[in-house]
Amino acid sequence: MSRKIAFIGLGIMGKPMAVNLVRAGHHVTGYNLTREPIDALVAAGGHGAGSIAEAVADAEVVITMVPADPQVEQAILGEDGVLAHARPGTLVIDMSSITPQTSIRVDAAAKAAGLRSLDAPVSGGEAGAVEAVLSIMVGGADADFAEAKPLFDALGTTVVHVGPAGAGQTVKAANQLIVAVNIQVLAEAVVFLENAGVDLAAALDVLGGGLAGSTVLNRKKGNMLAREFAPGFRIDLHHKDMGIVTDAARAVGAALPLGAVAAQLVASARANGDGSLDHSALLRGVERLSGREVKQTG
Amino acid sequence: MSRKIAFIGLGIMGKPMAVNLVRAGHHVTGYNLTREPIDALVAAGGHGAGSIAEAVADAEVVITMVPADPQVEQAILGEDGVLAHARPGTLVIDMSSITPQTSIRVDAAAKAAGLRSLDAPVSGGEAGAVEAVLSIMVGGADADFAEAKPLFDALGTTVVHVGPAGAGQTVKAANQLIVAVNIQVLAEAVVFLENAGVDLAAALDVLGGGLAGSTVLNRKKGNMLAREFAPGFRIDLHHKDMGIVTDAARAVGAALPLGAVAAQLVASARANGDGSLDHSALLRGVERLSGREVKQTG
Amino acid sequence: MSRKIAFIGLGIMGKPMAVNLVRAGHHVTGYNLTREPIDALVAAGGHGAGSIAEAVADAEVVITMVPADPQVEQAILGEDGVLAHARPGTLVIDMSSITPQTSIRVDAAAKAAGLRSLDAPVSGGEAGAVEAVLSIMVGGADADFAEAKPLFDALGTTVVHVGPAGAGQTVKAANQLIVAVNIQVLAEAVVFLENAGVDLAAALDVLGGGLAGSTVLNRKKGNMLAREFAPGFRIDLHHKDMGIVTDAARAVGAALPLGAVAAQLVASARANGDGSLDHSALLRGVERLSGREVKQTG
Amino acid sequence: MSRKIAFIGLGIMGKPMAVNLVRAGHHVTGYNLTREPIDALVAAGGHGAGSIAEAVADAEVVITMVPADPQVEQAILGEDGVLAHARPGTLVIDMSSITPQTSIRVDAAAKAAGLRSLDAPVSGGEAGAVEAVLSIMVGGADADFAEAKPLFDALGTTVVHVGPAGAGQTVKAANQLIVAVNIQVLAEAVVFLENAGVDLAAALDVLGGGLAGSTVLNRKKGNMLAREFAPGFRIDLHHKDMGIVTDAARAVGAALPLGAVAAQLVASARANGDGSLDHSALLRGVERLSGREVKQTG
Repeated sequence: MSRKIAFIGLGIMGKPMAVNLVRAGHHVTGYNLTREPIDALVAAGGHGAGSIAEAVADAEVVITMVPADPQVEQAILGEDGVLAHARPGTLVIDMSSITPQTSIRVDAAAKAAGLRSLDAPVSGGEAGAVEAVLSIMVGGADADFAEAKPLFDALGTTVVHVGPAGAGQTVKAANQLIVAVNIQVLAEAVVFLENAGVDLAAALDVLGGGLAGSTVLNRKKGNMLAREFAPGFRIDLHHKDMGIVTDAARAVGAALPLGAVAAQLVASARANGDGSLDHSALLRGVERLSGREVKQTG
Repeated sequence: MSRKIAFIGLGIMGKPMAVNLVRAGHHVTGYNLTREPIDALVAAGGHGAGSIAEAVADAEVVITMVPADPQVEQAILGEDGVLAHARPGTLVIDMSSITPQTSIRVDAAAKAAGLRSLDAPVSGGEAGAVEAVLSIMVGGADADFAEAKPLFDALGTTVVHVGPAGAGQTVKAANQLIVAVNIQVLAEAVVFLENAGVDLAAALDVLGGGLAGSTVLNRKKGNMLAREFAPGFRIDLHHKDMGIVTDAARAVGAALPLGAVAAQLVASARANGDGSLDHSALLRGVERLSGREVKQTG
Repeated sequence: MSRKIAFIGLGIMGKPMAVNLVRAGHHVTGYNLTREPIDALVAAGGHGAGSIAEAVADAEVVITMVPADPQVEQAILGEDGVLAHARPGTLVIDMSSITPQTSIRVDAAAKAAGLRSLDAPVSGGEAGAVEAVLSIMVGGADADFAEAKPLFDALGTTVVHVGPAGAGQTVKAANQLIVAVNIQVLAEAVVFLENAGVDLAAALDVLGGGLAGSTVLNRKKGNMLAREFAPGFRIDLHHKDMGIVTDAARAVGAALPLGAVAAQLVASARANGDGSLDHSALLRGVERLSGREVKQTG
Repeated sequence: MSRKIAFIGLGIMGKPMAVNLVRAGHHVTGYNLTREPIDALVAAGGHGAGSIAEAVADAEVVITMVPADPQVEQAILGEDGVLAHARPGTLVIDMSSITPQTSIRVDAAAKAAGLRSLDAPVSGGEAGAVEAVLSIMVGGADADFAEAKPLFDALGTTVVHVGPAGAGQTVKAANQLIVAVNIQVLAEAVVFLENAGVDLAAALDVLGGGLAGSTVLNRKKGNMLAREFAPGFRIDLHHKDMGIVTDAARAVGAALPLGAVAAQLVASARANGDGSLDHSALLRGVERLSGREVKQTG
């Protein structure tokens, strides 16, 4: 069933997602602060708008995909935002990665305005967006999830309804927590193994085959062996995410003893100028702590 | 080619390993502090000895599999130990999990006594020993590894030569470091997700499918969901291993910021009486830190 | 020189501070959400107001002393707040303990409205407020500090100008960081000493006399020896402050490896129901981690 | 009452201590691996010996002051050591800083050999030894402490009996734990304050006057302000001590969440080449973690 969709935020992630919705047969009207990606969407068969108000005017579904909490607040809650202009009953799906607390506030505001909302952050990166193989973690009401499910299926391959409003963001935050810690401990293991004179490649092979195995080990060991840290997923973004998970866990009274230390180490990587490197470059921080010359990338 | 093997230490791991060597066609003479497992080995087609001296008298290869550093020191370096009684040229393979430093000392002592040695700790647990599917991480000389390879192949499916003397123990230590940290952060994520009201089973499914996926998540999520902590691998043993990796990393000047915190949390679990539970019971420590009633096992 | 002062927020700290300003000869008009403390101020020779607008109408100096960032934002920046109603040129002194970032925003807003501002958080607790022996850490312009100095001298004995807008809050945050960590490590030492069978009182005496000595050790060892945790300074408040310092350090790129762990432990104490105890009750968290029965207070 | 004392280990600490015992009227026979300090002791009125056996032959009291556990084991427990040669009933006082566990073993061996022992580590450094103002923490039996008290009074000004065998070492370990953590958090505060643009000297003054005050802050703030890190107490030695306290706490089941992180940071400082600097140079590690150019010493 073709839907009328407004898509707010046509960045690295948003643009290919909007295009995938067009390809799936939907009527997609895009809005972005800069013009270029709107033109690209139009070229791909979509439509463009000059403002959020114009984009959402007759939309059945509004999707937002913007960088962080302040942009979500402005785009959805602001004077010129979605809630001020969308029709009653519209389903607002925020696919940005933000704090669960903000998602909960957005949901409450949407309800107060007679609309409905889902939080649906994604993982999988630019490649996942382009190839429509994202993982999508969704918080909100059952009926709204059911309604949105066909749209999500046009964007990703793993689509899971994980709970009420905010739950999608919570799971995304947990994802980033686990990933950061798994990378960091792999980095600690790598420096330990190298310092001890072990054949690192052989060691990582055997480690990967046992209980120490992980997707992080499989995908990032090449970066660590080669000291090749082109992103991938940038430390700057993971730093933002560690702030989200730290705040969110604090808000629900959950202890993160490892997470808190990992957040400091991600922040330290950024402070040392590694923010634009892949998060596997946490290895460089362990090298610094261990007094080793930090090997060059690339 | 059938070898004459002395097998010292027929415990939960050692006994099935010795039996597997018998099944592979070797002449295996076992020694153990208690008589029972010797009888079992004899019943399986092996031979028994009343002392280390007797066991190693005409052995070509000596394998030791004992609980910790002091037992290795006594069994190999002690007055009544292997080096005092084995013939020159004998290959001594210590498959216990101990500190790399001790393995290096054992290797030096073996060389000084005209013998050869490998350190070859395993992972895979009792089931892995019984089914001969252990992972075996080997440190020592190339030629000695080549000679021992057929024996290892009778015990495990992943057999990797990772470097010089001590390297096997180093890789085993790194394995335990990664496993402890991956379990602990999974436990932090679980409490965070539950406190936030997320559907935990659904969340763990989506997490397992992305970059946060790991063997730990796959194998331990069931324990965590059900609060079922029958071992598996006991926290008491992981506590011993965290001591090994902490000391070993300190010895080579490698920083373990997450590892050090994880070691404290494993120790805390043990101090709270969870030592005989599976290491997935680190979840209980996060529950305690988060002020939650710790759910019962089973 | 007598000044016309509006005092917003007559709580546990604010009321005695306002009274001390009256005693120093100033004309103090107080406002509070509840009426009681206004009456008390009037009884002490001050004046009362029914709104912030009324309180600040002809004030030369406005002092705010409220619980946290949102109350400061409302009281100073809100529609019915100080900036909307005070006369141009008025000196606004916020003595609440909040994030430096909020103080900097308040300062910018005050300037934009034609007013001046100082941030001047205090330490010393209720007793310090009553006895006018507070420590006051002040951020802002030199001339404004000079103008406010006589008022501060009526409230405290240590009054220090530490830098530009926000600097007072930064120093207060650093104070809370050091205090939390010094208490936590003292608690770790206490459990270690007790577990090892040492005479704790004797040990703390000798520790206090050497490089390990601290004001925390002097003032809190009695609480720890007696397990007497009546506040004092409540863990709930210290939890708020650890949030401030963690955020503030993150904002300026400063690493807090110990601070981040301490923040988790303070949060854990609160999650375990110790929020209304004195912060020396961090000892109870170390007892929990160490598997000891947590001794009862008082 | 003049005693016949054998003093084993005339290093930076031991030599001035032995001289102070001579000055107090005792008959002191010194032994050291190198000859020079023996000659110095003789020049000061003491006596020299060519072996431990000779030194202890007719001693009533034996004092040992050596670098670490292995030297204590050799000097007291070794074939040519104190226990093998001293007369029954001799009081053996080990004033080295070692693990409590080793002190407990030494005590058991002394008893088994018909001798008595005390562990009596000191704090106060070379200056404290020269000026006889050391703090001395003593573990052992009441009667033995009473007998040794006059000797301790010739060496220090704070002499405290803190419990049974090993208790002196436990308190010394706790001292080093607290000192390391208090220095580290001060360093974190300094970088935070500087990054935020605060007047550091003023801030440290106000911090020192409140609950954040400590002997560490008083004595080390000058080093931090000036980036002047001439020892003082070397990071290499504090690294050794963090190993002691980590092991000792592990042995008695006491959690050290901050202590474990601090131990990593001390180790990191050493790995970065700061081992010969004063422990206040932990500041340099926080600068590294915060991505700041590490300022030069002196």
